[in-house]
Amino acid sequence: MADSDPSKNQPAGYEPPEVWDPGVESGGTFASINAPTSGARFEKELPVGKHPHQLYSLGTPNGVKVTILFEELLEKGFSDAEYDAWLINIGAGDQFGSGFVDINPNSKIPALADHSFDPPIHLFESGSMLVYLAEKFGAFLPTDTRKRAETMNWLMWQMGSAPFVGGGFGHFYNYAPFKIEYAIDRYAMETKRQMHLLDTILADREFIIGDEYTIADMAIVPWYGSMMRTAYSSQKFLATHEYTNLERYVAQLFDRPAVKRGRMVNQTFGKPEGQVRERHDARDFEHNRESQIEERGGERITWDD
Amino acid sequence: MADSDPSKNQPAGYEPPEVWDPGVESGGTFASINAPTSGARFEKELPVGKHPHQLYSLGTPNGVKVTILFEELLEKGFSDAEYDAWLINIGAGDQFGSGFVDINPNSKIPALADHSFDPPIHLFESGSMLVYLAEKFGAFLPTDTRKRAETMNWLMWQMGSAPFVGGGFGHFYNYAPFKIEYAIDRYAMETKRQMHLLDTILADREFIIGDEYTIADMAIVPWYGSMMRTAYSSQKFLATHEYTNLERYVAQLFDRPAVKRGRMVNQTFGKPEGQVRERHDARDFEHNRESQIEERGGERITWDD
Repeated sequence: MADSDPSKNQPAGYEPPEVWDPGVESGGTFASINAPTSGARFEKELPVGKHPHQLYSLGTPNGVKVTILFEELLEKGFSDAEYDAWLINIGAGDQFGSGFVDINPNSKIPALADHSFDPPIHLFESGSMLVYLAEKFGAFLPTDTRKRAETMNWLMWQMGSAPFVGGGFGHFYNYAPFKIEYAIDRYAMETKRQMHLLDTILADREFIIGDEYTIADMAIVPWYGSMMRTAYSSQKFLATHEYTNLERYVAQLFDRPAVKRGRMVNQTFGKPEGQVRERHDARDFEHNRESQIEERGGERITWDD
Repeated sequence: MADSDPSKNQPAGYEPPEVWDPGVESGGTFASINAPTSGARFEKELPVGKHPHQLYSLGTPNGVKVTILFEELLEKGFSDAEYDAWLINIGAGDQFGSGFVDINPNSKIPALADHSFDPPIHLFESGSMLVYLAEKFGAFLPTDTRKRAETMNWLMWQMGSAPFVGGGFGHFYNYAPFKIEYAIDRYAMETKRQMHLLDTILADREFIIGDEYTIADMAIVPWYGSMMRTAYSSQKFLATHEYTNLERYVAQLFDRPAVKRGRMVNQTFGKPEGQVRERHDARDFEHNRESQIEERGGERITWDD
């Protein structure tokens, strides 16, 4: 700090105070929901449906990781993997209700309660849910020591790397109230480095650990698949067309029926046929899509790009 | 993007180009090692010592997580948890050598090879190593479903949250070449929110999941203990004295013999008695400290604060 030159700061002359002022407005799209404290802001119970697994979520990359795993488990025949997926409107602050905070004191989607246990087991952090459900059903997380280690390597890599993509690049390129060149450059470089790494690994592997489809793929494809397609309208900026192996991988996984369904659950944007606002039954996919297609005069438009 | 006003941007008038220029200098302390690509930059084999576990690391919070676990396992009597800890100088770019990249294609410390297997099992991401070693030795990761879920919740929380503290707050408050008010405010708020959350949880729990010491604590205390003590010289700025429950927890864990040793391994700053640059034997702790204390005229200075 000794050699800092306040005239170069942004804004020029800015100097950090001795003690940060918690009253400051952070600005940007999510300014109203950010605070330097945790905890419930109002009393509100959560609804509970008929299935053992109650998911409170939103169709963001972190939310979609878990709905993909549920749909893959159901596809594989695990009928006990049935779940209710309730919509949490993070823009309206649903995640600060007492019922939500009781499950996830960190107030982030997704939150999951397993009512097979009394009291229900509470899960937070998408990565924790992936491990929990994979171990519960004995699927998509290898028990072989080497393959298990590789799966955890890549799952943990995704958990620790995506904050630079979403909270870093996405925020400064898309959500911040004005454009800061230094921050955009910093996170564009890191985002491209991560995508280059995946592209390199996937040059000679079908899935991220090799020939086996695991929860590491289910963690990676929602994030980096979004980055390859539409996220932050940044594909040209990041020259994502360079990542041809990653594109092959994303296209292959996005084409799986369970992944298609998982990406529709709690989805609130994109084509209407791709939005199953809440999912309480396998028929919700057909029902919502059919009625929406009917309204459009029978024209069937694929929901995915 | 449609309603953006370039005059408000920093610097004023800055507009993101259509395609990001990979030749841009990101600036700051680590500018020379950042790049938008992954992979080895030079050929270099890694040394291999006598123990089954070969750790290539540095005494940062992420590195210290793993050395704490090794020392706790040894303290518990698991003699097969012996390890060699080699120093990786990330400022000099050691992490881009071919041997390091072979273990961790992501080029971040720590990297670990388990030579109990042929070929060795490769681990990257500190969180993956914690799970791997805890499962290998059957310690510090509960097998009870509820407690295991809680441990994974908090381990994953740490993995996904610390990037906002280190890569966010630490970078913009301490390492960036100039001070950007918006970014400092953004990450100070999030860092304080995380510390407030821990402080709230720890008000009535000895450890993060309750009464059992787990790998989640070993992941949390290096990061948030550093934040409570010396990291980024930011304690006054963040008013960390407010977090009295977190302080109790940090003081308690930092007082454990295994945690003290773990924090000394591959340490390159702080008091000399606290620096065991490389660890190949349990005697390295006594040896280094005694010789250093002798040089200082017999005065015994505690290494920890």
